[in-house]
This record gives sequence, C-alpha cells and structure tokens, in this order.
Amino acid sequence: MTEPGGAPRRVAMLIEDEFDDTQVTDSLAALRSAAVEVVVVAPLTGRPYTGQRGTQICGDLAAGKARAKDFDAVVIPGGHAPDRMRMRHAMVDLVRDAVAAGKPVAAICHGPQLLISVNALRGRSVTCWPSIAIDVKNAGGLYMDKPVVEDGPIITARKSDDIPHFVDAIVRAITRD
Amino acid sequence: MTEPGGAPRRVAMLIEDEFDDTQVTDSLAALRSAAVEVVVVAPLTGRPYTGQRGTQICGDLAAGKARAKDFDAVVIPGGHAPDRMRMRHAMVDLVRDAVAAGKPVAAICHGPQLLISVNALRGRSVTCWPSIAIDVKNAGGLYMDKPVVEDGPIITARKSDDIPHFVDAIVRAITRD
Repeated sequence: MTEPGGAPRRVAMLIEDEFDDTQVTDSLAALRSAAVEVVVVAPLTGRPYTGQRGTQICGDLAAGKARAKDFDAVVIPGGHAPDRMRMRHAMVDLVRDAVAAGKPVAAICHGPQLLISVNALRGRSVTCWPSIAIDVKNAGGLYMDKPVVEDGPIITARKSDDIPHFVDAIVRAITRD
Repeated sequence: MTEPGGAPRRVAMLIEDEFDDTQVTDSLAALRSAAVEVVVVAPLTGRPYTGQRGTQICGDLAAGKARAKDFDAVVIPGGHAPDRMRMRHAMVDLVRDAVAAGKPVAAICHGPQLLISVNALRGRSVTCWPSIAIDVKNAGGLYMDKPVVEDGPIITARKSDDIPHFVDAIVRAITRD
C-alpha cells in the first residue's frame, strides 16, 4: 500500500512455534493483497517455525535485528505462540518500542498476552481469546467481547473468524496518518 | 496414604488436552507410590485426553460430578491444558470450592492460570512457568523463582524438574491435618 508520494506501508508480523496457522496465513495473505509489505519476524532466521496444525514458515528477519522505527505497525497472531514470545526479550522489546512510539500494534486471540507483558493495556478497551480475559482485566484492560476493538493505536481481535475485521482495522490504522 | 484409623488420602488431578505429559504421569506415579488415591478429573469421561507429547489418558470422573468436599486436595498439572481448563466452568468451580474450603490446591507450570481465574493469589507467594509470571503478579501474587512455594494451602512449582519437590509438598499438606 503506497501513500501518494510515500513509501509502501510495512508491518512486522511476529511468529514463534505453535502459532495459530490461520491467523498467520490468512492475515498475511489479506495484508499482502491490500499491498501492505509484511516482514515475518521470528526469533531466528534460517529455520522454520511450526504452527499448531503443522504449517511451517520461516522468518524474514530475526527479532534481535528488528527495530520498531522501520515498521508502520506490529501484528501479533495468536495460538500458543504468544506464550513463547513473552520469553523472547527481543520480541518483547520490539512490541514495547512500537507501543512507546505510538505505532499501531494489533493482537488477535492470545496475542494480547504480549501487550500485557509490556503493560500496554492499562485503561484501554481490549478484546482477546476468552481464556485470557481475566489476565487482560488484571492488567488494567477494559475487556469487551467484540470482533475487533480499536483503542488508539491498540487493535485487538478474539479469534480466527475475526480476521477480516482485524486486517481491515490494521490497514485503516496504517493509512490514517 | 492412610492416617492412623483414617481413610486413604484422595486428591483430584485435573486434565485437559495439551497437558504436560511428564507433569501428569510422574506426579500421578509419585503420588500413588506415596499411597495417595488419585482421581483423574477430566471435562468428560469415556474419551481420552492427549498430552503435548502424545500421552493419552482418560478421566476417572467428569468435572461436573466432582465435588471439592470429596477430596483432600486438587492438583493442577501444566502445559497448555490450564488455558483450556479456564474455560471449563465445572473445573473452575471445583478449584474455587477447594480454595474456599481451605483445602490444598497445588499447581505447577501453567497450572496457576486456574488460580488466577478464581482470584486465589492475591497477597500469596507463588511460583509458576516464567511466561505467566506477569499474569500472576497482576493477579496480586508475590512471584518467586523457586522450585516449590507453599503459602498456606496454595502450593506452586515452576516446571517438570520441580515435580519431586511439588509432590513432597502435596503429600505433606494432605497429611498435616
């Protein structure tokens, strides 16, 4: 997606083992079909990461080399991957830096676990996979059961069914400013 | 384990799909070798539940039929199973009732997620798998990185390596009173 006279919009999509296959593949396809450049950011490059249903994907960029300033947004798919990403300092730092810079950060399903880790939810309206709603509330988030919730630069969605709304919100957010 | 003149001690062990295989099988074996009766409580009986590394186990009792008053303690193994158990009302109710009755509740790895769901950690010293330490803190728990932490009836451990300490603490707790 190119703004008049501007560079194509570029987002970082975070992956780790046990990602939700659909949330990665469908979001990736939908963003690319909207002419958004998606850089897959993984803990390491040169080895595949495996989804919960067996999809394999390699990272384009190692998390330790990713800088928030090089992206217009960060996207965090769900599954059990976010539970692993929380222990990857480089991924946590990337999300923290993006939040601090006021860039859109979009998380679906268990993705908001990473937003809890960087304390980005306090006072924000948020949705998520229902099992972690209590964690979102304890982190100061205002939980709502809606397909997509946008509160400033924080965009959240509940599950794979919400991907079209989720991607629309991301595309709107990165073309707004 | 039989107290002089008393009934054998009986604990409920909760399972769901994606349990940590070792945390279920080794804790079960260690408790049984200490003469503790272990009742495996699953969402449903008559179908197997599958661990993260493929171990299959059937429940002895459906969660909807389990009553806290019939057990001396509740044990919550980890893996991704606790993320699923949080959405099983009967399991959450069983843990809540056991906590309310002051019975020992022992959780390892991601097991403390269920203790967050019933708001049992406020002001308590707790350990857990490191990815959820922030959730434990946000729930009012005092997180410590120790093999096993006992705070009143709440017993927590970090990971499979801690199983011997975890089981010792459970056995001590149910033979104490």
